[in-house]
Amino acid sequence: MSQNSLELMLPKGMCDISPADKILQQEVLDAIRSIFESYGYLPLETPLVERMDVLKAKFAAGEGTDVSKEIFNVTDQGERELGLRFDMTVPLARYVAMNPMVKLPFKRYAMGKVFRDGPIKLGRYREFWQADADIIGAPGPLADAEGVQMAAALFAKLDLDVTIPFSSRELLAEMMDKVGIAEEQRGAAVIALDKLKKIGKEAVKKEMMENGVSGEQCDELMTMTQLNGSNTEKLDSLENSLGESPAVQRLRQIIEILKDIPNLEFDPSLARGLGYYTGFFFETFLLKSKISSSLVGTGRYDKMVGQFSNGKIDVAGVGMSFGVSVICDALREKRENFRKSVTQVYVVPVSENEVGYATEVARMLRDSGLNTEMDLVGKSIGKNFSYADSLGIPVVVIVGENELKERTCSVKVMVSGDQFSTGFSDLFEKIKSSL
Amino acid sequence: MSQNSLELMLPKGMCDISPADKILQQEVLDAIRSIFESYGYLPLETPLVERMDVLKAKFAAGEGTDVSKEIFNVTDQGERELGLRFDMTVPLARYVAMNPMVKLPFKRYAMGKVFRDGPIKLGRYREFWQADADIIGAPGPLADAEGVQMAAALFAKLDLDVTIPFSSRELLAEMMDKVGIAEEQRGAAVIALDKLKKIGKEAVKKEMMENGVSGEQCDELMTMTQLNGSNTEKLDSLENSLGESPAVQRLRQIIEILKDIPNLEFDPSLARGLGYYTGFFFETFLLKSKISSSLVGTGRYDKMVGQFSNGKIDVAGVGMSFGVSVICDALREKRENFRKSVTQVYVVPVSENEVGYATEVARMLRDSGLNTEMDLVGKSIGKNFSYADSLGIPVVVIVGENELKERTCSVKVMVSGDQFSTGFSDLFEKIKSSL
Repeated sequence: MSQNSLELMLPKGMCDISPADKILQQEVLDAIRSIFESYGYLPLETPLVERMDVLKAKFAAGEGTDVSKEIFNVTDQGERELGLRFDMTVPLARYVAMNPMVKLPFKRYAMGKVFRDGPIKLGRYREFWQADADIIGAPGPLADAEGVQMAAALFAKLDLDVTIPFSSRELLAEMMDKVGIAEEQRGAAVIALDKLKKIGKEAVKKEMMENGVSGEQCDELMTMTQLNGSNTEKLDSLENSLGESPAVQRLRQIIEILKDIPNLEFDPSLARGLGYYTGFFFETFLLKSKISSSLVGTGRYDKMVGQFSNGKIDVAGVGMSFGVSVICDALREKRENFRKSVTQVYVVPVSENEVGYATEVARMLRDSGLNTEMDLVGKSIGKNFSYADSLGIPVVVIVGENELKERTCSVKVMVSGDQFSTGFSDLFEKIKSSL
Repeated sequence: MSQNSLELMLPKGMCDISPADKILQQEVLDAIRSIFESYGYLPLETPLVERMDVLKAKFAAGEGTDVSKEIFNVTDQGERELGLRFDMTVPLARYVAMNPMVKLPFKRYAMGKVFRDGPIKLGRYREFWQADADIIGAPGPLADAEGVQMAAALFAKLDLDVTIPFSSRELLAEMMDKVGIAEEQRGAAVIALDKLKKIGKEAVKKEMMENGVSGEQCDELMTMTQLNGSNTEKLDSLENSLGESPAVQRLRQIIEILKDIPNLEFDPSLARGLGYYTGFFFETFLLKSKISSSLVGTGRYDKMVGQFSNGKIDVAGVGMSFGVSVICDALREKRENFRKSVTQVYVVPVSENEVGYATEVARMLRDSGLNTEMDLVGKSIGKNFSYADSLGIPVVVIVGENELKERTCSVKVMVSGDQFSTGFSDLFEKIKSSL
């Protein structure tokens, strides 16, 4: 294609993240990272490119989820079959299996892009951010509870009101056992049940019956999952139907650890579609919001890592993945003002003569900890003010002939419109107190 | 490939970044980001995947650099020809050309992975981090100088001693003009000169002569570039040979802005290999180090963005790219101790009875700002201490039967070996003062 006919386009389903959007996203990523680190999770970074056989290994996606169709193909000059990662759990399992000296329990976090060559919807892209925390090698309820604690801490930090429904695959298995759904029908039954909120009871029943579950079994299961009352009352009621239940026992332990977390809601009808989950899981939804997606995907997967090591390592796994983009949407819905710039102070030399002094002023402000931009192209004062205004930069400092002579600065606080003059040595304190 | 025969391997030339290495790298990335933001650069994120025609556009790499051989091929289900980005300058040029409403000058930073399917050497990978800052639309010397200011600020912050050699393409063009090297030979002559430090004078001369430059021209050019004295003395001497020189004039302006920066060394023999550079550039080398690579790649490229927009936008560009991995190597060479964990306090409940109280203790410490991990699997006290020791966690807090009863904690400071007991309400202050 010749240079002149080059058509500038993005790959289908991909997007640029503009500065204003990236500033918001970076705030979310920083908040997530600080929560992960406050719980002692260690950062691990795996490549964005993995070998296709690792990505496509059947157990990677679990039964019932054919994610292999959504993997972007990558080839190098050696014609190796590679692909872009579609999540960060498979690479984690590979890492643990390849590094048997890793100390367990291994608490790791990872933040980065993943790729899915799937259908595009509004706000859903083929390249997107994920922020994951997982614990490998901790089978007990404390590890299950930690994900909920982190989610609650993050949303408190971001000032988002949420509800946290939870249940467990173990419980689902016990319930299906009770109503007599056969082992080989359970995968499909879980997938059907997972759609309950979206498609309703009747459609779920229809899908289950198409997969060999009887209408009676389906009704019984539905009745068992539709409970009222407090979390403890629901668990009591389930124990009445199930008899002695390790799953209920486990959920009681988790609830006890989480007794300080608000809006924790046991919902035994929840399923979680992915095949590899084996135990406790939770979701997180916004209260008073138009956004209906879960802000986090979680689950215990006690078999995946073992399968990756060909059975050489048998370890428990539990993990959570924050939906970075839906959390950004939640902040966009809630807030009125958004930062368009990282700059706190904008320094303007009136003419070339003041460039040296302006450089000194800017440097002092930066060394004091203020993000400080300087006019680099000699715009007029008017254009400089409208530039600062359009980007929402809070403070403009003007240095002209007089300011240079007297080693002072003229300051304008953009929000209030306040203007004052101050000596070089007081400038930082004066700006700091006006921000 | 069946599950049991799956061989776990990384793609050739790619690597996992272990927690200890990622903690160090994250420190470097955080430092770079804080410098970029302190100068008011805005974050922009473009996809890792671009259309192959955009990546391969001839002007993207500039004459003399065939980077297209090093692009990883990506295909989606629509059989589109895509590729992994090999730098972040081409995507920036595409973004500016596609978004004519962007306010100029546009100062943007970008931090992320880039991919080159090239030869593998020790410490050189096919997927690696880059951290770039560029200014689009600022043709003057202030914009050239800002990159040097940021590099100096970063290396001061990281406590690395560096020297900063600089020159300009404009000057090189004037010198080649002076000795009569024809326009069409200059590309090859720049590439040859760029190797001066690596291959020596004689080999550079040989390569130049193979490309049609006469021995006499080459000698004259070499003499002109081999100067002694201060930066100003060198510029004076060049003005003597060149007569009136816009390039020398420009370098004088840049030096004046940078008069407070130490170890700035004018070296007119520098060339910078990439074809698209047009003006000022600098490099940065460690003093007293075995590491010989430049820590940063920089340059002015006043034609590239215009070419991307088919001539519709004609804007100046100047940019810098920090070599994240070589900066990490520099810190590894200089330091003796490395953090293996982000955790500051490790909380151990002696038995299941104390799990609730330990959870409360851990939560209070996190809320106070300390990264706090808790034993999730009920290890023995001895194993817990050796776990904390092996990861270099500075403080261990034990809560047993007595501590629960009295609402106290037993604290051990790992480095000093100090042990003490304290009430719940004093715990944070006591730990803080012992860190």
